[in-house]
Amino acid sequence: MIVCKPLGSLWATKKYGELEGLKLMRCEVVGGMDAGREIVCADTVGAGIGELVVVAQGSTAARFLGSQLGRNVPVDALIVGIVDADCDVEQGG
Amino acid sequence: MIVCKPLGSLWATKKYGELEGLKLMRCEVVGGMDAGREIVCADTVGAGIGELVVVAQGSTAARFLGSQLGRNVPVDALIVGIVDADCDVEQGG
Amino acid sequence: MIVCKPLGSLWATKKYGELEGLKLMRCEVVGGMDAGREIVCADTVGAGIGELVVVAQGSTAARFLGSQLGRNVPVDALIVGIVDADCDVEQGG
Amino acid sequence: MIVCKPLGSLWATKKYGELEGLKLMRCEVVGGMDAGREIVCADTVGAGIGELVVVAQGSTAARFLGSQLGRNVPVDALIVGIVDADCDVEQGG
Amino acid sequence: MIVCKPLGSLWATKKYGELEGLKLMRCEVVGGMDAGREIVCADTVGAGIGELVVVAQGSTAARFLGSQLGRNVPVDALIVGIVDADCDVEQGG
Repeated sequence: MIVCKPLGSLWATKKYGELEGLKLMRCEVVGGMDAGREIVCADTVGAGIGELVVVAQGSTAARFLGSQLGRNVPVDALIVGIVDADCDVEQGG
Repeated sequence: MIVCKPLGSLWATKKYGELEGLKLMRCEVVGGMDAGREIVCADTVGAGIGELVVVAQGSTAARFLGSQLGRNVPVDALIVGIVDADCDVEQGG
Repeated sequence: MIVCKPLGSLWATKKYGELEGLKLMRCEVVGGMDAGREIVCADTVGAGIGELVVVAQGSTAARFLGSQLGRNVPVDALIVGIVDADCDVEQGG
Repeated sequence: MIVCKPLGSLWATKKYGELEGLKLMRCEVVGGMDAGREIVCADTVGAGIGELVVVAQGSTAARFLGSQLGRNVPVDALIVGIVDADCDVEQGG
Repeated sequence: MIVCKPLGSLWATKKYGELEGLKLMRCEVVGGMDAGREIVCADTVGAGIGELVVVAQGSTAARFLGSQLGRNVPVDALIVGIVDADCDVEQGG
């Protein structure tokens, strides 16, 4: 997984029906060499802008979210948890 | 997923029959450290050149599109939605 | 998918029997930030050196080729089409 | 797989229930061009901070750990072994 | 797939039992922009240090090796062949 920071929601009116009702957030990778890379993640845990989140990528995201929702979803990145505020991820410690 | 901008269609007369009738678009990644990377995506939602689109990658794309079309497709990137015009993705906000 | 240019065939006498008879080509990624990256692709569509080809990667390649050949293949990149000669991919247009 | 060095635990109180009880560690990639990249890995083999570990990524991690735990887990990176102390990975030899 | 050069064996006494008896090799990517990246690969074809090998990555490696061994293996990179000595991969030709 990777640690990311949500930058904002992403709105797409024209999309596959299977994405209907799913919150999509633009996120920036935090920490390490990939810091600054941007991805779009589905969120069902209620992440807020500027929080640190843990993101699972690839078919792992599609399969897990698909099994939660009971439908096939074209999603390759999923927020799976919100990092506790006192966990000093950004300080590298 | 990642945000991309379609650059144009890609034509390939000689290909697997399973790709027949599928629109393929050359797309440029938008935003973050990967900006400028180029990928080729299948499109069934009707994206236009220069619009911003959301792309799902990997086996997620193959499985989802395969289930939509009812056939096995050798596709590892799929446009899954078109970003609303008033969503300021490129401004990073 | 990504656009690549085959550089030459790759010969490996000592290999898994499931690769027997499969043409493997060393390919260079064309276009965008990844230009110059090298991968080895299986080819069954008859690509020539210096042509532009479309490559599907990851388990998508293994599953699709495996279903074509009716056997399990340890292949994570597959040439799925040959770009038409009048498609100006390299000029970025 | 890749060789990584755990930097510390990652705490996320708000997360999918399927992650409950799983130790997550922030890890830094060691060796080669990707040195310094950061990922978050699940650990069930008991890795310590500063040890060198071998990490499997992608759906391989989700499937293997899922089969060990008997439940679906949204995990795309898993520590699968601890490198022996006398194995000179960092010296490149 | 990618062309790599084995640098040496990797020893991990503490690991999942499913890895028992599998040779793991630290490998360096050869050729192209990724040259110098390091990965750890399982090997059952008998590759030697300094030879050039072809490596399949991702769930393709896990599935193929798993089907060969008849057990679930947490392996995301597998040496699938040894490049013939007279194949001039490093010269780019």
